[in-house]
Amino acid sequence: MKYERLRGFRDLYPEDMEPKDRFFEQAKKVARSFGYAMIDYPSIESIELYLDKSGEELVGQTFSFTDKGGRNVTLLPEATPSVMRMLTSRKDLPRPVRWFGIPKIWRYEEPQSGRVREHFQFNADLFGPNSPAADAEIIALASDILDSCGLRNRFHIRLNNRKLMDAILESINVKDVPKAFSIIDRFHKIDVEEFRASFLAVAGNKDNVEKVLELIREKGEADAMLEKIEESFKDVEKINEVLRNLKQTANLISDYTGYTPYLDLSVVRGLSYYTGTVFEFSDAEGQFRSILGGGRYDNLAENFSGTEIPAVGFGMGDVVVELMMKKYGKWETSVDAIKSYLVSTSQSGAEICMKVAKTLRESGIVATSDLSGRSITNQMKSASSSGAHLAFIAGDRESESNSVTVKDMATGSQTSVPLESLDSYIFSKIGELRQRIST
Amino acid sequence: MKYERLRGFRDLYPEDMEPKDRFFEQAKKVARSFGYAMIDYPSIESIELYLDKSGEELVGQTFSFTDKGGRNVTLLPEATPSVMRMLTSRKDLPRPVRWFGIPKIWRYEEPQSGRVREHFQFNADLFGPNSPAADAEIIALASDILDSCGLRNRFHIRLNNRKLMDAILESINVKDVPKAFSIIDRFHKIDVEEFRASFLAVAGNKDNVEKVLELIREKGEADAMLEKIEESFKDVEKINEVLRNLKQTANLISDYTGYTPYLDLSVVRGLSYYTGTVFEFSDAEGQFRSILGGGRYDNLAENFSGTEIPAVGFGMGDVVVELMMKKYGKWETSVDAIKSYLVSTSQSGAEICMKVAKTLRESGIVATSDLSGRSITNQMKSASSSGAHLAFIAGDRESESNSVTVKDMATGSQTSVPLESLDSYIFSKIGELRQRIST
Repeated sequence: MKYERLRGFRDLYPEDMEPKDRFFEQAKKVARSFGYAMIDYPSIESIELYLDKSGEELVGQTFSFTDKGGRNVTLLPEATPSVMRMLTSRKDLPRPVRWFGIPKIWRYEEPQSGRVREHFQFNADLFGPNSPAADAEIIALASDILDSCGLRNRFHIRLNNRKLMDAILESINVKDVPKAFSIIDRFHKIDVEEFRASFLAVAGNKDNVEKVLELIREKGEADAMLEKIEESFKDVEKINEVLRNLKQTANLISDYTGYTPYLDLSVVRGLSYYTGTVFEFSDAEGQFRSILGGGRYDNLAENFSGTEIPAVGFGMGDVVVELMMKKYGKWETSVDAIKSYLVSTSQSGAEICMKVAKTLRESGIVATSDLSGRSITNQMKSASSSGAHLAFIAGDRESESNSVTVKDMATGSQTSVPLESLDSYIFSKIGELRQRIST
Repeated sequence: MKYERLRGFRDLYPEDMEPKDRFFEQAKKVARSFGYAMIDYPSIESIELYLDKSGEELVGQTFSFTDKGGRNVTLLPEATPSVMRMLTSRKDLPRPVRWFGIPKIWRYEEPQSGRVREHFQFNADLFGPNSPAADAEIIALASDILDSCGLRNRFHIRLNNRKLMDAILESINVKDVPKAFSIIDRFHKIDVEEFRASFLAVAGNKDNVEKVLELIREKGEADAMLEKIEESFKDVEKINEVLRNLKQTANLISDYTGYTPYLDLSVVRGLSYYTGTVFEFSDAEGQFRSILGGGRYDNLAENFSGTEIPAVGFGMGDVVVELMMKKYGKWETSVDAIKSYLVSTSQSGAEICMKVAKTLRESGIVATSDLSGRSITNQMKSASSSGAHLAFIAGDRESESNSVTVKDMATGSQTSVPLESLDSYIFSKIGELRQRIST
């Protein structure tokens, strides 16, 4: 090939893009049923929007450049700062504000399974309330989206709280907490000896490393895990307070979704602005990278406008969802549309076909032709290989009688339908075909 | 504000993005009814993809940069080369190939009314057949999309053919035809004296300038215009041949769409790869820049893979469509969804509300709450200001009786509904509310 696409980028052909688009349609529908409304924002922002806020690692992975006007800009490496910029630019929005968007996101990382340099991200945020109920709502939204795409019980909800981790790290005298989070965030990507070595630098001594290692290795249903941690840290009031919040959040999630969330102290999320609840959803069979992640970030608004606005949200990339849906047979490349094929054998027949096509499409039937002017035999072959349910055939004879010949491709039966009764013919035929397709 | 969005870029809040998304949903639906399937491609491509093919002006307007791997890349300034790259990478696609996509497109131009630096573009292409019927199909697709969005009869279809212009320019001895096209393309953006001065350089003498000026100034319904041109150039066989093609295309468009297309020789399109039919749709009242534009580009595939593949397509930006839909009152910020509000007065009530919410959402009803834990009076005020049709209220009393109290916000009537009969209650209430909303 003379021109290649860039490394780490994807060409999405219909067999991939049609099911992907259906997934996003479904996500939008569920989000709207929760009262979330769609927004969109530029794909390019000033690089300043991410400095200090998102964390060094992310800023190092941006597609950034200087534009023709001399501005230092970057393709969006994540959605949250843009959403926050939009939120804090408007003072008139009644709270709670519930927004979602489906931007593209770019990261200059090494491409690997489940990771590309450009992906779509379904992103939802809830601004205003700061409560376990708010955290549970955003998690329920994510969970309902996956349920509605056929992934019910295929994933685990893994929960944690940055405040719990802060208090635990503080109780063992870790000074550089952000650094500790960034090491814990990479726990599943590095081997345990590498983790031990990196963490020793922030933990001070080996005992502390082992203590943290034990905590982040153990995961289980939230109730049991919470009791265990309570037992270990029963003298630390700060920890008990967060545990109560976590317990309430976990219970509300169960009520809302029917899932029992897991408590997993290795879930801390890579971005530096999270302040409370953090969560990831992962394949129940542990095969893929996480499906989605998010959390509470109550201090970010202050950074933008000087006023605090509680916030919780999540981002779900399209890559792992696709792998999951494929794994569980939910990635269907075609849907049950009724398809028709137009076959014309003369100029006057072509005119009839155009009118017929308009009526078919308005009735929700896909109508195509090969536009080739080839013989009727060849056109009928195309009709057959296209998977059409009906062929509409018109030539001079049909033009004279102002009619069209309809062939049912499954039964082979042919009927002549006068154009003036085409509507009612199509109406009854749709009913018949829908029944046939669904059985 | 501490952080500003970049100049020429847009923040799309729900009042803009929700109707925009509905427009794209409608466009997708119509495209699928024509048998077109959705694709997507990277937002970044190697700059080489546009050099020599798209024209100098466009390449000068790109957001281009060198990536971290030293590649010279650019944000997509148009969709066609990427689509062509995808087409020519696959040898197994049965023709005709019918594709559409909704990429974002970037141009570093001076922002002005109807022009921004980043926009969405609905883009459709038909590969394989080279015939007036194929050209008419792609134009009918564009026209049906606009019709279905409430713009029927609000726009004109303006048609031309590059071959006609080639032959006309040749007949008056214009040597640099691409240069002539680029001047003609800017005809409506510059004043007539500027046009005369620029065109003199390619036309050789003032008589030729006036001849061309007369031709591109006159526009009218295709039939009449075609006859007139035929009359003026009756000795030039090349011109007569194109005129026959144009006539057939115009007739098919009429059959297909019910619109009489205009012939407008000032429509040549800015991109250099067009080879035949070119077209633009414009506001019938002449207020805005063109709504969409496209044409036939049969030689581009050869540039990619050495093999010719006939192609015709169009691109429709979201900006002028939005202006049009706003002008004609078709840009509706909200749709007729049934909305409900959940009001809980205790912990046990909150649990009931969550279960009720799930049932409501699954029935297609929007269900929200303010998650505030405020007094029932304040929650009911929020319910009212949110525009909810129904409020579902639960506290300890409802928890004991395993029921929920439903208030019809329009009539003020309240009912207690046992949770086990919630489904049937919602079903009958939906019917009642749909009727009320639609009348």
